[in-house]
Amino acid sequence: MATVKLLTDEEVASVPAVKAVFDDIRATRKSDFVNNFWRALANQPALLERTWASIKQVMMEPGELDPLTKELVYIAVSTANSCSYCVHSHTAAARTKGLSDQQYAEFLAVIGMAAETNTLANSLQIPIDREFLIG
Amino acid sequence: MATVKLLTDEEVASVPAVKAVFDDIRATRKSDFVNNFWRALANQPALLERTWASIKQVMMEPGELDPLTKELVYIAVSTANSCSYCVHSHTAAARTKGLSDQQYAEFLAVIGMAAETNTLANSLQIPIDREFLIG
Amino acid sequence: MATVKLLTDEEVASVPAVKAVFDDIRATRKSDFVNNFWRALANQPALLERTWASIKQVMMEPGELDPLTKELVYIAVSTANSCSYCVHSHTAAARTKGLSDQQYAEFLAVIGMAAETNTLANSLQIPIDREFLIG
Amino acid sequence: MATVKLLTDEEVASVPAVKAVFDDIRATRKSDFVNNFWRALANQPALLERTWASIKQVMMEPGELDPLTKELVYIAVSTANSCSYCVHSHTAAARTKGLSDQQYAEFLAVIGMAAETNTLANSLQIPIDREFLIG
Amino acid sequence: MATVKLLTDEEVASVPAVKAVFDDIRATRKSDFVNNFWRALANQPALLERTWASIKQVMMEPGELDPLTKELVYIAVSTANSCSYCVHSHTAAARTKGLSDQQYAEFLAVIGMAAETNTLANSLQIPIDREFLIG
Amino acid sequence: MATVKLLTDEEVASVPAVKAVFDDIRATRKSDFVNNFWRALANQPALLERTWASIKQVMMEPGELDPLTKELVYIAVSTANSCSYCVHSHTAAARTKGLSDQQYAEFLAVIGMAAETNTLANSLQIPIDREFLIG
Repeated sequence: MATVKLLTDEEVASVPAVKAVFDDIRATRKSDFVNNFWRALANQPALLERTWASIKQVMMEPGELDPLTKELVYIAVSTANSCSYCVHSHTAAARTKGLSDQQYAEFLAVIGMAAETNTLANSLQIPIDREFLIG
Repeated sequence: MATVKLLTDEEVASVPAVKAVFDDIRATRKSDFVNNFWRALANQPALLERTWASIKQVMMEPGELDPLTKELVYIAVSTANSCSYCVHSHTAAARTKGLSDQQYAEFLAVIGMAAETNTLANSLQIPIDREFLIG
Repeated sequence: MATVKLLTDEEVASVPAVKAVFDDIRATRKSDFVNNFWRALANQPALLERTWASIKQVMMEPGELDPLTKELVYIAVSTANSCSYCVHSHTAAARTKGLSDQQYAEFLAVIGMAAETNTLANSLQIPIDREFLIG
Repeated sequence: MATVKLLTDEEVASVPAVKAVFDDIRATRKSDFVNNFWRALANQPALLERTWASIKQVMMEPGELDPLTKELVYIAVSTANSCSYCVHSHTAAARTKGLSDQQYAEFLAVIGMAAETNTLANSLQIPIDREFLIG
Repeated sequence: MATVKLLTDEEVASVPAVKAVFDDIRATRKSDFVNNFWRALANQPALLERTWASIKQVMMEPGELDPLTKELVYIAVSTANSCSYCVHSHTAAARTKGLSDQQYAEFLAVIGMAAETNTLANSLQIPIDREFLIG
Repeated sequence: MATVKLLTDEEVASVPAVKAVFDDIRATRKSDFVNNFWRALANQPALLERTWASIKQVMMEPGELDPLTKELVYIAVSTANSCSYCVHSHTAAARTKGLSDQQYAEFLAVIGMAAETNTLANSLQIPIDREFLIG
């Protein structure tokens, strides 16, 4: 169904740049599973390397936002962009990072409200209050 | 610039249903400031009441997601929906709830990555891995 | 602010193909006002002609949907696509076609609900019921 | 395929708050059919109750917009938001409310034109005419 | 799965206006294959005729943009609008017009970057530099 | 109007990591002008560095797509995502890379058609033809 072939481990074995990324994905995640997103990007080695390097830095390096919060933000964007693949993969990731049913219910309520009020504000073309502006 | 008149406190004073919501907004937020979103919705009293009741329940009732996380999720959706008003108002709200510059920088990195990978997955039409499916 | 110059009547006078469209806009709408959308498209005569011909056929020819319903549908799409210009111009058009305050309030409630449930369905990735499928 | 389990009538039977909503859906629609949207939301009882109460008020209470017009507006938003589930369920609903083939053809023409002109206006960044502004 | 029946050649044979468009599609493309998009639109003859006439003019008439560039722009929009059907059909079209694997990799990198910076600019609400304005 | 302060050259002078990026932007573009996008990102040095490095690689390294084609694809995505800032900055960039009025007219026609047919395909929920699938 993809617009490119999803590369298997065998096919990747002969492309060192791609093989190195797959090895790093497995080592970083401590899992043998490499999901389809990376198998599709494997057709574009430069894009694969840059994307994986960015994901590793943005999503996995310790910072001031905890990993679960990052996943929720990721799902929110993916939902608004109607990316089925991303919604599925990041909801699964959120669960492995401890998302509870109650947190998920609250999250859904927030994204639903946000979408509703976005639509109202965009349709009413509400001007931004001076109080919200910087400086 | 709005498609409706933004109602002033004087105009609202004579509409009890709207006045009651404005009073509740002020009491709940412990602030005299009522932003333009509510002044625009004041033209549609039933919609105003329902929207405020939902926002109060979804965003302010204590739960398992902390208030700052909810605001970040809200900004994420508002950004993806290109709602300038909502981005401004909820970024301001996030700052009053303690958003640090470092957290904001990490948040921006996450929504940027999400948008990028959403686009890649949607353009490559990547099929969902069996591993991500429920049940 | 536009990415092209908005052409004035003087500038249009020397381009017959564009002048003819402007004349037809004025005759069809029985008004001397030609709004900025057409003044921007006037830089691309072929696109101007095709777009005006389509708008005239789609929005103005009598059919089974009344003109106000068409405008509401137009605003709904324009809101979801965050087109400020289109929201403003078609909300103004809807008012000239009789949109009442109460109808507008109900319309806003519908687009808000739709956006909210779209988000819930897209985030929950709900499978389509067999009952909704054709044939 | 959903990110949550779709609850069956048996599973719902033991959750009074959810059971009450399902009963009301059946009574209101005079049909035994409860579609997957509600079966997914049944995992989040508070969200289920609030969403159903809003849908009932917004879509089913008599007002100045007729039920078919509301459905067309709903489909327009759902299409722009790429919500397959919502497009399917509300197109089916529109047909049960009398949508004719000719009305559907005109509706499709309108949403197509709207999307096209939204794109042109957003790409040309056309400034809003003074004539469209309120007050 | 469509919301309308996809019309077969047999069904189309008795509707001259539709038959004429199908014949023109086949003659223009020098191929017997008529894809589902046109078979769905065949239910709305006026929309079918106008859409095919526009596509023929916009995508096939010689101009200053080469056919492959047009297809890449088309895929970019279709991806951002989450149109699976359009992404598939225009990626296939781009390949028949000579899209190389390297070009596709570069294209994917561009649309990914664009989506990422769009999100950053929309979330930071960056004001437009005077240098970018016309006139 | 931004949600962060746009940093001036004076403010940037004392932050070596940011100063280095600004210097590289100026050297790479052979221009003293640093636009607001980078002045806003300057508040998030890590994000600034990663974004500039990616833009440089994706948009400026020689490849199989020429620079103007990349800009057109960038504008197409930015338009669909309603990013005013990005539409303005990349339309200006396209003009400096030689975009002719005729090319721009053809480009606008393509993105308009794409948006229209995306909407039709998404509303009709057209199934993907077997002929478009890989492998």
